[in-house]
Amino acid sequence: MKVVSIIGRSGSGKTTLIERLIPELMKSGLSVATIKHDAHNFEVDKVGKDSWRHKNAGAKMTIVSSAKKIALFADSNGDSSLESLCERFINGVDVVLTEGYRMSKYPKLEVTRVENGELICGAANNLKAIVSDYQFDRGVPVLKPDNISEIAEFIVKLPDLDEPDK
Amino acid sequence: MKVVSIIGRSGSGKTTLIERLIPELMKSGLSVATIKHDAHNFEVDKVGKDSWRHKNAGAKMTIVSSAKKIALFADSNGDSSLESLCERFINGVDVVLTEGYRMSKYPKLEVTRVENGELICGAANNLKAIVSDYQFDRGVPVLKPDNISEIAEFIVKLPDLDEPDK
Repeated sequence: MKVVSIIGRSGSGKTTLIERLIPELMKSGLSVATIKHDAHNFEVDKVGKDSWRHKNAGAKMTIVSSAKKIALFADSNGDSSLESLCERFINGVDVVLTEGYRMSKYPKLEVTRVENGELICGAANNLKAIVSDYQFDRGVPVLKPDNISEIAEFIVKLPDLDEPDK
Repeated sequence: MKVVSIIGRSGSGKTTLIERLIPELMKSGLSVATIKHDAHNFEVDKVGKDSWRHKNAGAKMTIVSSAKKIALFADSNGDSSLESLCERFINGVDVVLTEGYRMSKYPKLEVTRVENGELICGAANNLKAIVSDYQFDRGVPVLKPDNISEIAEFIVKLPDLDEPDK
């Protein structure tokens, strides 16, 4: 399994890139999970649903399970690290793409548009590539955002968790 | 930790009972998680949200994590057993209340109204009590649905997972 973070400023195109990478990675037979860091107090379940009623009544965690899907809603005491989320919840997938988690140890691709200004990530953050239509000289490859197959190939070549860093 | 299932026919009042039991159990300092079996193909995340976009692009699992909450959406190949859901996802709570899961090994309370007809659960299903305004002679206590503190006490006295059955 490998964990790769797609990071960048708000509006840089992180979600769109992840949305396009998933089917591209799946074409190569890889299974993908995603983890998104949310800085806001997001609301996901639907008011009035049974699971919402359970959670709203004070349950620390509510799970809904059907033959096709599982959904889980849990309280958190502060931001969970990417490491702990992977350990607690992820198994049986080939690639975990994260949106955000700039401070984790995992390899990162930064997405940026010219209007996004300075990069937020550098070598110290394990930056492996920049995804942009513009040129950068930061000692890492610059990949074009529309060249999804190239970005997917780059991700596939990044080391797995149990391999030494290349 | 103990796992107790609230079972009963559709419309018998399972969700309402769970919704009332959670704060009652919390009054005693207990933390509660819930697991609901859903027979339908429920939709929980909101169309257009980033997490929905990840999942909809083909991710097998999508997690959203903020400082206050964690949400997880995963594919499932058939109904997960209650045992496997508990093992995979639950830790650090005192009581797990489930809505449904009649066929699990865990102790059960059946909720029933007179219009619900025959009970769906018996001694073979580890039925521990009936929650109803009507009388039943099935060798287990019959608890009144409005006497929430009595039902909560009954649940608290059920054996923990690591105790031998009482």
